[in-house]
Amino acid sequence: MIERAYLREVGLRDGLQLVRGDLSTAHKLEWIREEAAAGVHEIEVTSFVPFKSFPIFADAVEVATTALAIPGLLASGLTPNARGALTAFDTGLTKVNYVISASEAHSQANVRRSTAQAMDDFARIVEARAERGLEKTVTLSFGIATCFGCTIQGEVPEDLVYRIAERGVELGADEVMIADTVGYANPLQVERIFAGVLSRLGNVPVAAHFHDTRGLGLANIAAAARVGVRRFDASLGGLGGCPHAPGATGNVVFEDAAFLLETMGLSTGIDIPKLIALRRKVEIWLPEERFSGAIHRAGVPKTFHAAA
Amino acid sequence: MIERAYLREVGLRDGLQLVRGDLSTAHKLEWIREEAAAGVHEIEVTSFVPFKSFPIFADAVEVATTALAIPGLLASGLTPNARGALTAFDTGLTKVNYVISASEAHSQANVRRSTAQAMDDFARIVEARAERGLEKTVTLSFGIATCFGCTIQGEVPEDLVYRIAERGVELGADEVMIADTVGYANPLQVERIFAGVLSRLGNVPVAAHFHDTRGLGLANIAAAARVGVRRFDASLGGLGGCPHAPGATGNVVFEDAAFLLETMGLSTGIDIPKLIALRRKVEIWLPEERFSGAIHRAGVPKTFHAAA
Repeated sequence: MIERAYLREVGLRDGLQLVRGDLSTAHKLEWIREEAAAGVHEIEVTSFVPFKSFPIFADAVEVATTALAIPGLLASGLTPNARGALTAFDTGLTKVNYVISASEAHSQANVRRSTAQAMDDFARIVEARAERGLEKTVTLSFGIATCFGCTIQGEVPEDLVYRIAERGVELGADEVMIADTVGYANPLQVERIFAGVLSRLGNVPVAAHFHDTRGLGLANIAAAARVGVRRFDASLGGLGGCPHAPGATGNVVFEDAAFLLETMGLSTGIDIPKLIALRRKVEIWLPEERFSGAIHRAGVPKTFHAAA
Repeated sequence: MIERAYLREVGLRDGLQLVRGDLSTAHKLEWIREEAAAGVHEIEVTSFVPFKSFPIFADAVEVATTALAIPGLLASGLTPNARGALTAFDTGLTKVNYVISASEAHSQANVRRSTAQAMDDFARIVEARAERGLEKTVTLSFGIATCFGCTIQGEVPEDLVYRIAERGVELGADEVMIADTVGYANPLQVERIFAGVLSRLGNVPVAAHFHDTRGLGLANIAAAARVGVRRFDASLGGLGGCPHAPGATGNVVFEDAAFLLETMGLSTGIDIPKLIALRRKVEIWLPEERFSGAIHRAGVPKTFHAAA
């Protein structure tokens, strides 16, 4: 039996939040449509942040509602707070992603709130979902940033990560995402922390979000897959960063991650050549950005067989 | 107890064989001296190939004899045949590296010999060492190229790799190096093949040589380390390729590999900031080359502790 792995595109959110130029709504929708056609399971299509601070997301509602209509695609949106969640619910999105920082220092720098206050906000989001009768139709993903260390405060205790993850599930999270926001993670740490999270959360789906800041993005995906993780974030061409993660140039490269997972016998359902063709378009649309990756240049090996 | 890992610099051989420009003998020796001072265990300092085809190695004897005098450094040299081995023995090098291709097609393309003929040549090298009474002073490394597949012939049977490795040891190899010459390897395959080789070769040291062609170089090092490999090839800034491996742009980045191994609790003895400073010099010396890597840009994490 072929095992399945799920890759989520985060380039339209984590990628775009730091770009120098702009990307038109039409190009965003072309990106989303073509990735859906290439077999991408989930796309985080936008971010419900204040438009004044992030004008690139001023079209959030339009992007979300249009993406919703694409057959076979799970379109999700990020919200940094309860207010954004209400807007996300209004669009009709069936998955809303919220992120809290395990690092107090990162939480303050990123959203000017303590980790405890951010947890209270998640409780409000769960309540708001209930008040609207959306428990059965809207999935809430609970992400935890800086789980592998923080550029500001340094160490983040692993026990704290476990406690936050458990608390998120108690409050109502349907999925927990463990993020290496700043590119600090290494394979042994990844195996240990994901094994710890998986063993504590029972059947709650657990996703991994790595940055390739120090070159270990794919090694960390391999390590997480080894201990049973089957959901991974990545961005086309490695686009992305974090304003409070210095040098954090890039998410894991989506097309390279798909290649890796397939070689590990995990079927992603993704058509890699289609992704590479799309990547070339996105590179033209965002000429000031630094893209990375390898498989777009080298192609898959002659010996490559997709897992499916 | 701290476990040790051994990184071998191959940039002065595998890296330089494809560069467009030239590198002076003085710069080569500065590179070698500074890497030795940064704690690098072994440097493959040159290649005893025909000077006419590879003028960049015309100074092989001078580089080898000068490198030999550097305290604490294991200087080795590559030879493609018995003739080069005799020159290498004459220099006084205490380690000589020979490489055979598991892929017949690659062997013919690379050295115009069959794999069996290349094996006979290794037997002649072992004999020549004995005739000169160098068995106790000169270590012979037996490398096997294209162990994970070949860009020309495609699949390379794993059993063939094991048979070639065993035959090399029977003939007199003191070390076996398993190479992914064309960047085809993936982590599961790496774990399987290295476990297979290690279990067959007893106490003979086994080294791993990966290329980062498809982005999996570091993931493959992590996989090999996981099954017990403790010797790895890499090149400063990822310099290198292979004339018969299209798109094989780069060895694994040395400084990134050192960082990865340290995070895995394997002490490399390497001073990463010193390596990064040297990389900046080499980038200036070879302005036409594409260097890669991440740790030189991002720096080690605030949470990083060297294994030693």
